[in-house]
Amino acid sequence: MIKKIVEVCLTPAIFKHFENKDAIVVIIDVLRASSAICTAFSNGAVSIIPVAEIQEAKEYKSRGYLVAAERDGYVLDFADFGNSPFNFTRDKVEGKTIVYSTTNGTRIIDLASSSHISVIGTFNNLSAITDWLIRQDRDVILFCAGWKDKISLEDTICAGAIAEKLIESDLFSTICDSVHASVDLWSIARDNPVNYIEKAAQRSRLRDKGLDDCIEYCMTLDINQSIPMIIDGILKDIAG
Amino acid sequence: MIKKIVEVCLTPAIFKHFENKDAIVVIIDVLRASSAICTAFSNGAVSIIPVAEIQEAKEYKSRGYLVAAERDGYVLDFADFGNSPFNFTRDKVEGKTIVYSTTNGTRIIDLASSSHISVIGTFNNLSAITDWLIRQDRDVILFCAGWKDKISLEDTICAGAIAEKLIESDLFSTICDSVHASVDLWSIARDNPVNYIEKAAQRSRLRDKGLDDCIEYCMTLDINQSIPMIIDGILKDIAG
Repeated sequence: MIKKIVEVCLTPAIFKHFENKDAIVVIIDVLRASSAICTAFSNGAVSIIPVAEIQEAKEYKSRGYLVAAERDGYVLDFADFGNSPFNFTRDKVEGKTIVYSTTNGTRIIDLASSSHISVIGTFNNLSAITDWLIRQDRDVILFCAGWKDKISLEDTICAGAIAEKLIESDLFSTICDSVHASVDLWSIARDNPVNYIEKAAQRSRLRDKGLDDCIEYCMTLDINQSIPMIIDGILKDIAG
Repeated sequence: MIKKIVEVCLTPAIFKHFENKDAIVVIIDVLRASSAICTAFSNGAVSIIPVAEIQEAKEYKSRGYLVAAERDGYVLDFADFGNSPFNFTRDKVEGKTIVYSTTNGTRIIDLASSSHISVIGTFNNLSAITDWLIRQDRDVILFCAGWKDKISLEDTICAGAIAEKLIESDLFSTICDSVHASVDLWSIARDNPVNYIEKAAQRSRLRDKGLDDCIEYCMTLDINQSIPMIIDGILKDIAG
């Protein structure tokens, strides 16, 4: 049996070098976009429209949409809320379409979904997304969002956790050094992921801004069953 | 005391984001450029002229220079030899200036040295380069060459080995996630680096081409005291 291939892309700066257009791309932005998106769907959001420009988000707001928008962690003044998964509560999002604009996440979503079938993965939906990937007849690229083109520990270990499960299924193999690096780092982090990312730069950035209340939640495995997929530029949960 | 800063750049694709122009850049291309360069100097080479274009290397050859040139591991037909450190023997290189052109290495040398004080580091000269860095009053960027913009395990763990020594000196600190990742991977690899990189893509590429006889040598720590620095575009050993 020919195995499927799993690769890891550790920074958006090199995504163009991952040339397998038939692969499914899993976008991993643990702190906090991927976690917020999964939470919104599990609390009943109907769809999420990612928009890159602040002006575009503002126009949606004036047309009555619920808008989540932040830049560098700070909520934009016209928005309903920012990027913390704790904002996406059932009373706010159930039955709604949410317009969503973040510093980093929206760009990555555009980059991936313009060329590939793209879904959102994080610790929260780890088993759900992995089990779904195992059932598809396609290779996989685990695409770490990182931070402004630099590499993030939290996204890297999450990629390692997913890659490890794929390889353990015996349906995937790899010759990608970033897969080995991610899996090995996950082997160090797995006993206590929250403790492991104490040294991560994004951990410090969120602490400095008082936005770190959601870290433990974002690093928790398997509390969410959603499989957010980008379809014609809009996120929908295909799990349900 | 304000500590010096160490950062790791895991791929040339993001080197432009490392904005500290006062930092010393250590170029790490373990398999095989960094190892070959250090070997040449320890065997008495006077200087090494890195050239990017094949045509330029050919012109140097016609003017009587010793030329080392390869593309994707294969020696170019007009060249005296390729990129294996075993080529740079004392009888061939002592007292000579060598013109040097490789697939990956030359581009990285240009990229780094156009903006930064740049030296060559690898396992072979690990303690020599680290001790020298500790004595300089500058921050450090460990620049992994990788492979065609992708990340290489062997360069990553070498960066981790250097970063660990710098941090242990208590003169350096970091907030760079790639430093933590590299140091943690080195902690897994250190007991048997040769065995660790059995899974590396470059290990397979060299094996497929029958060029893997030098792997064990390239992964050996502290057999070389040279500190190759790029001065006005030319490599010189500043250790001696």
